[in-house]
Amino acid sequence: MAYQQNRPIKLTLSELSEFTDSELRGDPDCKISGIAAIDQAGAGDLSFIHDGRYQSFLSTTQASAIILPTKLADSYSGNQLVNDDPYLAYARAVAALFPPHEVLAFIHPTAVIGEDVAIGQDVYVAAHTVIGNGCELEDRVRLGPGSILGDECVVGEASILKGNVSLGDRSRVGKRCLIHSGAVLGADGFGFAPQKNGKWYKITQIGNVVIGNDVEIGANTCIDRAAIGSTRVGDGVKLDNLIQIGHNAQIGEDTIIAANAAIAGSTKIGRRCRVGGAVAIAGHLEIADDVVITGFSMVTHSLRPAGVYSSGITADDNRSWRKNAARFRKLDDLFRRVMNIEKIIKS
Amino acid sequence: MAYQQNRPIKLTLSELSEFTDSELRGDPDCKISGIAAIDQAGAGDLSFIHDGRYQSFLSTTQASAIILPTKLADSYSGNQLVNDDPYLAYARAVAALFPPHEVLAFIHPTAVIGEDVAIGQDVYVAAHTVIGNGCELEDRVRLGPGSILGDECVVGEASILKGNVSLGDRSRVGKRCLIHSGAVLGADGFGFAPQKNGKWYKITQIGNVVIGNDVEIGANTCIDRAAIGSTRVGDGVKLDNLIQIGHNAQIGEDTIIAANAAIAGSTKIGRRCRVGGAVAIAGHLEIADDVVITGFSMVTHSLRPAGVYSSGITADDNRSWRKNAARFRKLDDLFRRVMNIEKIIKS
Amino acid sequence: MAYQQNRPIKLTLSELSEFTDSELRGDPDCKISGIAAIDQAGAGDLSFIHDGRYQSFLSTTQASAIILPTKLADSYSGNQLVNDDPYLAYARAVAALFPPHEVLAFIHPTAVIGEDVAIGQDVYVAAHTVIGNGCELEDRVRLGPGSILGDECVVGEASILKGNVSLGDRSRVGKRCLIHSGAVLGADGFGFAPQKNGKWYKITQIGNVVIGNDVEIGANTCIDRAAIGSTRVGDGVKLDNLIQIGHNAQIGEDTIIAANAAIAGSTKIGRRCRVGGAVAIAGHLEIADDVVITGFSMVTHSLRPAGVYSSGITADDNRSWRKNAARFRKLDDLFRRVMNIEKIIKS
Repeated sequence: MAYQQNRPIKLTLSELSEFTDSELRGDPDCKISGIAAIDQAGAGDLSFIHDGRYQSFLSTTQASAIILPTKLADSYSGNQLVNDDPYLAYARAVAALFPPHEVLAFIHPTAVIGEDVAIGQDVYVAAHTVIGNGCELEDRVRLGPGSILGDECVVGEASILKGNVSLGDRSRVGKRCLIHSGAVLGADGFGFAPQKNGKWYKITQIGNVVIGNDVEIGANTCIDRAAIGSTRVGDGVKLDNLIQIGHNAQIGEDTIIAANAAIAGSTKIGRRCRVGGAVAIAGHLEIADDVVITGFSMVTHSLRPAGVYSSGITADDNRSWRKNAARFRKLDDLFRRVMNIEKIIKS
Repeated sequence: MAYQQNRPIKLTLSELSEFTDSELRGDPDCKISGIAAIDQAGAGDLSFIHDGRYQSFLSTTQASAIILPTKLADSYSGNQLVNDDPYLAYARAVAALFPPHEVLAFIHPTAVIGEDVAIGQDVYVAAHTVIGNGCELEDRVRLGPGSILGDECVVGEASILKGNVSLGDRSRVGKRCLIHSGAVLGADGFGFAPQKNGKWYKITQIGNVVIGNDVEIGANTCIDRAAIGSTRVGDGVKLDNLIQIGHNAQIGEDTIIAANAAIAGSTKIGRRCRVGGAVAIAGHLEIADDVVITGFSMVTHSLRPAGVYSSGITADDNRSWRKNAARFRKLDDLFRRVMNIEKIIKS
Repeated sequence: MAYQQNRPIKLTLSELSEFTDSELRGDPDCKISGIAAIDQAGAGDLSFIHDGRYQSFLSTTQASAIILPTKLADSYSGNQLVNDDPYLAYARAVAALFPPHEVLAFIHPTAVIGEDVAIGQDVYVAAHTVIGNGCELEDRVRLGPGSILGDECVVGEASILKGNVSLGDRSRVGKRCLIHSGAVLGADGFGFAPQKNGKWYKITQIGNVVIGNDVEIGANTCIDRAAIGSTRVGDGVKLDNLIQIGHNAQIGEDTIIAANAAIAGSTKIGRRCRVGGAVAIAGHLEIADDVVITGFSMVTHSLRPAGVYSSGITADDNRSWRKNAARFRKLDDLFRRVMNIEKIIKS
């Protein structure tokens, strides 16, 4: 189920200067019908220079126009869009060139729709979807094929679920969200009470998942429903693929989390945080606003104040690593030996 | 496909004291119609205090009744259920208030069912399921929408597959299991023989997956079929989301594994183990019964005897981390220097 | 949707010696109708000894024939296939005993097929699949139930998609590939431009995913489409389950990656690399050909030349670990103290 054009529409450089809020230098009527990296661009393509690394290609590029920061603009004589945030300008240009498909009201005959489902205007429901009782699909929602909504789910205006997405009962998705294939929202949180006989007693998970507006959720990412109350993902949050968000976790607005990260239950992450890939954060912690956690870090205590936090040791050649890693297990001993030496020297 | 009530049934405090095996203090006829955290509970809600942290809310809570341990019971004058395992009592209370839906025999007309499929009593098969030849669904099984069973699968009595679950050929699921959306059981194990030309030759995986009784399997978790024989998950095992269980692994009874953990092939984990989130365990190892592995640990050798095992260094501020991590790569060198100093001092 | 026989066909030892390119010793007409581990094999089974560990079972095994390396062949008097690469010979024998099902041209009536879809000969399309406009399925392709292809996808000759696989628009899969259930190819890459207001602006991802020939992709693995251009997985690559491949990454031919690994965007991995489970590789790096990265390593810089690279510290008993891990955070300080001692001693 396509949600954007597979091929760009044609725009003039003048139109693109408006879309990207850039200063136009050169031919306003230059037709742009594609976007490409500066070393691969051809006639009709718009390209961009994000940083100095690609500057050398300016003399050889075949691009019809280039997005450049002011400091590089004078060094290029061809058509250009001058913008001091060329990456953002590029983002706006791609969005303009590959606009979303017009949404047509359509419900595939193979869709299975429960009772009391409210469906807004221009809603698209693809083949083999299953929608539970009492769901609400607001205007311009698009459900991809094979998506499954439990009972009483709400999907907000203009939100898109790609293929094979699963929403548990009473999940609430805000407006303009994009949920990629295989994501599972609202599976049971992982809660079990230990019993004296060594068996686990399941804590029935009666909460739900509440997703804000403008949230993107990656493929095969899982966000569990709360034990009681709601697991909450704030407005503007961006989640990559294969992420685990445990029950009752709270993710603050505009926080961005890279792939394979795991956020355990009841942890509260602040606003505008950046969490790297494969980071693991233990449960019941608080991460302050504006915290950056670099990739592959292990977080077992709350992180305050704002700042950059890290752990992990990068790969070394195996021979060196073996020696150092073996020594690590004697590190406490080494500290004691050094303390001892210090005593001897002082005495 | 709901499997429990979305809204609680009403119970009296007297009924709940029986369900939870607790001592009732207060009004036995008090009607309970919900459950909530102590600081958020209102009239009709049951709440609980699991540990001392929330004790201060006892004076202000609006809950109609509270589950309390004996040592706190006297400090509260309202309705209460006294139980020295308040967490387990809470678990039992939620289960009583949100009982499973009655299972009705139903096969959705869009379900595609192969030949020679045996279907027990009161089996529910949701829309867009696909069931291979020779499968057996025991009494009260529920298959959620979009679930796919290969040939000759067995799903035991009262087990539930949520949406978009995939079972490979000859997978066997025990009784009373709960498998969450997107889980994949019985995909091929990862086995390839190296060839002289640098290409890999696939080892055809002819084994299967065998899941015991009372097992819960999280969303998007993968359990591969064995190369030969069976990958086995024992009775009472609880697996969180996004876990990898490699081919021929064996997970002992009542072991619990948190999200994003990876258990490589042929590793045997004992009974009643607790494996933290994002733990990685190499292949062909043995983990003894009653081993606890804390989150984000790397396990490359067998772990015996029972006990708690850990690795990983928790995140530090980036500046300190950079310095320490750089030093790590000279750790062996440091040990040698200290040894040298010790020699000098002794001499 | 089975793709290989669930039960072995019968072959003579003579036939198997041809399939496995082994020297036959014993009865050429011995009928083989199964394959099993040496300590579990019975009459009719073929078994194998891969290394010395299982040699002791030679005197007691009930197997009808055994694959053995030359050095062990003389110590066994029963039927045998002598091959100095017994693991590869075993792989060939299993493949011969469990051949793929004959592919029959079949399109299930519940399949939903878009416009201008080209379907080759002997293509099998299972129930509840959804195929977008302009797709091309080459000869002998098999699409498992619930699989979803976006627009303009190409699936090459004899490739198999198992159940609930999702391909984004314009994904291209080569010949003889095997993609396991729940895999998602061609979801959007994770690209957002920061804005001054703290919000993220989505970089529309206009690229695609291109998979070579003879590639295997594990269950619930995600390979994102490129921002511009293609994310590429080379011929003969083998990917395990729950792997993340970021946008614009390039995976070289015959590289093998174990479960739960995460390869961030724009990283280029060479040919014939072996990447262990749960490895995390940062973005924009280059990994040389023939690099081996051991499991759970963190890779934050390019790795050259070929060789084995590692990081991570294996789990220790919790008490020792606590002491050593605490010391780690004072490691830089320790180096300074030792330097100071060295100065004092020298002076």
